[in-house]
Amino acid sequence: MADKNIDSVLLSVGHDLPYLTGYTAMPLERLTMLAVHSTGVPLLFVPRLEAPRVEEMPGLFELVPWDETVEPLDLVAQDCSGSSTIAVGDQTWARFIVGLTHRLPGVRWERAVEVVGDLRMRKSEIEIAALRAAARAVDEIAGELQSGAIPLIGRTEAEVSADLSQRILDRGHQKVNFAIVAAGENAASPHHHPGDRVIQPGEVVLCDFGGTMNGYCSDITRCVVTGDIPSDVAAAYGVLMEAQAAGVAAGINGVPCEEVDAVTRQIIADAGYGEYFVHRTGHGIGMEEHEDPYMVSGDRRVVETGFAYSVEPGIYIPGKWGLRLEDIVVATDGGPVSLNEADHNLHAV
Amino acid sequence: MADKNIDSVLLSVGHDLPYLTGYTAMPLERLTMLAVHSTGVPLLFVPRLEAPRVEEMPGLFELVPWDETVEPLDLVAQDCSGSSTIAVGDQTWARFIVGLTHRLPGVRWERAVEVVGDLRMRKSEIEIAALRAAARAVDEIAGELQSGAIPLIGRTEAEVSADLSQRILDRGHQKVNFAIVAAGENAASPHHHPGDRVIQPGEVVLCDFGGTMNGYCSDITRCVVTGDIPSDVAAAYGVLMEAQAAGVAAGINGVPCEEVDAVTRQIIADAGYGEYFVHRTGHGIGMEEHEDPYMVSGDRRVVETGFAYSVEPGIYIPGKWGLRLEDIVVATDGGPVSLNEADHNLHAV
Repeated sequence: MADKNIDSVLLSVGHDLPYLTGYTAMPLERLTMLAVHSTGVPLLFVPRLEAPRVEEMPGLFELVPWDETVEPLDLVAQDCSGSSTIAVGDQTWARFIVGLTHRLPGVRWERAVEVVGDLRMRKSEIEIAALRAAARAVDEIAGELQSGAIPLIGRTEAEVSADLSQRILDRGHQKVNFAIVAAGENAASPHHHPGDRVIQPGEVVLCDFGGTMNGYCSDITRCVVTGDIPSDVAAAYGVLMEAQAAGVAAGINGVPCEEVDAVTRQIIADAGYGEYFVHRTGHGIGMEEHEDPYMVSGDRRVVETGFAYSVEPGIYIPGKWGLRLEDIVVATDGGPVSLNEADHNLHAV
Repeated sequence: MADKNIDSVLLSVGHDLPYLTGYTAMPLERLTMLAVHSTGVPLLFVPRLEAPRVEEMPGLFELVPWDETVEPLDLVAQDCSGSSTIAVGDQTWARFIVGLTHRLPGVRWERAVEVVGDLRMRKSEIEIAALRAAARAVDEIAGELQSGAIPLIGRTEAEVSADLSQRILDRGHQKVNFAIVAAGENAASPHHHPGDRVIQPGEVVLCDFGGTMNGYCSDITRCVVTGDIPSDVAAAYGVLMEAQAAGVAAGINGVPCEEVDAVTRQIIADAGYGEYFVHRTGHGIGMEEHEDPYMVSGDRRVVETGFAYSVEPGIYIPGKWGLRLEDIVVATDGGPVSLNEADHNLHAV
């Protein structure tokens, strides 16, 4: 905080609070907020009726339950009355920030990620073990997809999505975060919402799914083809595999994150598919599915041991099909290690 | 907007955006934001890769897809460059508000609920029908709980919570929002998180559950006792039933919302349980589980036809047990109507 000239950090819903305290705020209109100042004991403001949920941590924070007829922003503002620069958690609800701007005029607002992000980006051994366990679980589901154990033809995207979701839970995740299933031309929309489209023979089916297991996220993408693989799809997939492998290999300590993006993008562009790779190469992952750093042009942070992120280039031909291949990678002193081990080939099922 | 001197309204994640446009923003770090100004066509900024998800609505908004290497806040700030007062959706992520405060110094920030809240509070017939359908679904589950069809003794709170969640989905909800199951002394914590505690004979079991069905929320609380009802529990429950019924009856058009709270609170206090009723009486409900208005001291808005809200007083004896009784009520020209019809008595199961 001192390095960044930040006087106070305010954390509410989102992952910084549980990262630091083990306590997750309920995403409701009743304010939960941890106020950390450059000196003094941090205060955790919680609604009185949620106070029994909090595991007290003497020395880490002091609990301040507030009653139903109190305006908790008055308490927070009073606690921050000496602060010129206040950093807030990324996902804090705007209603609270607006209320604080009225109570604390003249304050400069910053993002708490300036302080907490550096800590969260560098995963500990325990965190990496948790990411690996989650990756193993979705690897097994990817294997089932590739072996044909998950029926596709004749089912809707939504049905296959529900099937993947159940498998995510059955393999030890507490929560499903997403289960994108996109068939045929729908696969050309990278964030497609699985719908009533029935999967036909001879189609690309793109599956991108993940959940949260013991606080850490999984995220994997594999594509399969329901029948013979068309030659145009096979050609593009060969380029995609090469690009993805090169992107994984590029994540050596000291290399800028944007370089990982540049490597995959160059290979795809050189093969003539540049205009069809419409998103960044990857995102950090940990307690959140998407967190710092980002493998995208402009992110000049350099890879360090403990960084965990996705490498997921894609090629999307509008109206025809889409392909994406994604693993989670962790940076180590010995170079990048893929946490996902599911087969990378395009399987005909 | 003109009445409130608001020049621009910015909507992102949360329910105001789907209420007005039918489109729900993905809760991710890539910005989705609808910018509505006092004049001109509203612009919907979306990540390029999510643009295919948007159903275009010519005349309602113009779609502005932004590319991965663009900073979308620059686009939004430029679009708002003439605005002195900007209102933002309640659940918009703080990271975006912070970014906008840097780009638009001197702007006064307000809450979009000042504009959209008045619309959302007054439910249409179609919205009330959706709330009623969701209420019917959880009524049936409450009936199963009261008849003993949902096993309790020997199961953990978490198991019963999972059972209720499955029933919520089976009865037509697309999403489970919560399924609180709190046994014995745990029921004294109003927002208890269901855990490994095994339900024993002779205990109060408090169940508060709801989900989203076709965009609108259900929310009901019923308590049962596993065996004979202890006399102290029976006495308190009698008071609670009386208070809840009086709270429902109080919601006549023109009465301040806080009066509904005062009515339930007075009855509970007169019976000597005042200190054990630790939360407000209720909250508005619609697309969100909790939305304006609130049945709490200080909410002086007056009840109008179309208001939908919970009436849910409780009595919580620390270390012993807790009781809560909740229905969703809708205000009509002919007076308050309870959407929930599950039996109000305390059943021994």
